[in-house]
Amino acid sequence: MRSVFQDELDNVSQSLVDLTAMVSASMTKATTAILSCDLKLAEEVIATDVKIDDYQHETDSRIIDIIARQQPVASDLRALVTALRMGSDLERMGDLAHHVAKVARLRHPNAAVPPELVSIIQAMGVAAVAITEKTGVVIATRDTQMALEIERDDDVMDDLHRKLIAVLIEPTWKHGIETAIDLTLLGRYYERYADHAVSIARRVYFLVTGEYAS
Amino acid sequence: MRSVFQDELDNVSQSLVDLTAMVSASMTKATTAILSCDLKLAEEVIATDVKIDDYQHETDSRIIDIIARQQPVASDLRALVTALRMGSDLERMGDLAHHVAKVARLRHPNAAVPPELVSIIQAMGVAAVAITEKTGVVIATRDTQMALEIERDDDVMDDLHRKLIAVLIEPTWKHGIETAIDLTLLGRYYERYADHAVSIARRVYFLVTGEYAS
Repeated sequence: MRSVFQDELDNVSQSLVDLTAMVSASMTKATTAILSCDLKLAEEVIATDVKIDDYQHETDSRIIDIIARQQPVASDLRALVTALRMGSDLERMGDLAHHVAKVARLRHPNAAVPPELVSIIQAMGVAAVAITEKTGVVIATRDTQMALEIERDDDVMDDLHRKLIAVLIEPTWKHGIETAIDLTLLGRYYERYADHAVSIARRVYFLVTGEYAS
Repeated sequence: MRSVFQDELDNVSQSLVDLTAMVSASMTKATTAILSCDLKLAEEVIATDVKIDDYQHETDSRIIDIIARQQPVASDLRALVTALRMGSDLERMGDLAHHVAKVARLRHPNAAVPPELVSIIQAMGVAAVAITEKTGVVIATRDTQMALEIERDDDVMDDLHRKLIAVLIEPTWKHGIETAIDLTLLGRYYERYADHAVSIARRVYFLVTGEYAS
């Protein structure tokens, strides 16, 4: 028979999966907003960030309450502490989607992303969402093979980031410094977003195997 | 008479204060390295980052061990969970000092920072170190007034960051896109570094007062 404690752990895990879905939706919308200069969508992402923060805080409080009431030790305690950390990673991923949306809003009605960089930013957006969905599955299933896959997915993001910077420093770049600054920061936001997904995957891997993913 | 538990909490607090000192030393050196093109110093900061990470992991393990053995509830448990989070903030501040040092190493023997931006980066370095030292005092003393001061110190950093971007987008900027990209990222590293100090200050404020700093 399943214990109340086990049900509580599962609920926490489900809340983290819910958070990945919220964060993934935000990043999808933020990418669309910045590529199609959609101010309404950008505003929607910016407004949603508070909801993500609230949901994370609520999950955090619940985790601390479980620790206080159930007084878990060993692997159960580690799982709960890890859940707190994964919540922080997800909350930060939401912030980064929010940062992307803020660049879209700042430059509206102009396009923040010049035509020759649209395909790279689009690919970064797709990579970000794919990695977040996989992160949700890893949290739900504790699949260590998939956790390792996320490390490789991050290499795709890093590669796109390098390509982005390479376009910015081409002698033919004609969009000026301000656009280059925007794109440098946008590139950084997507890259950091994926880093947090990797961080979650590593935490799950460590929780299951007791070893660090190499 | 003081309890064993109270001593353990004090030791955790002292470890976090030690971490602020390590992080502060790293950022001081990273700023000197980038302003004086000092490769040896940059390498030293890069090497030290592992020590900061190890010290944080060791502190984390100790905190989890205290929770498992002492099974604290209410404010004691909250203090320990907050200590875990402050450790993460400090570890990330160490990463950001490490990022600054990596830009210095990447551009060596050239200067990453052109002459007209030296004073701003120097001021960001000074602000970063001042805010870290104050963060150490806030962790040690739980002084809520000083915690609020850190919010204002962060305004100084944000102001410097705005000045930095303003110089980059001046029509007279003559150092090209690659240098502008470096400076955009450097600005972001200092700004995020200070944000983590603010985050620690807010955590202490909340722990003491039960309210969010406004």
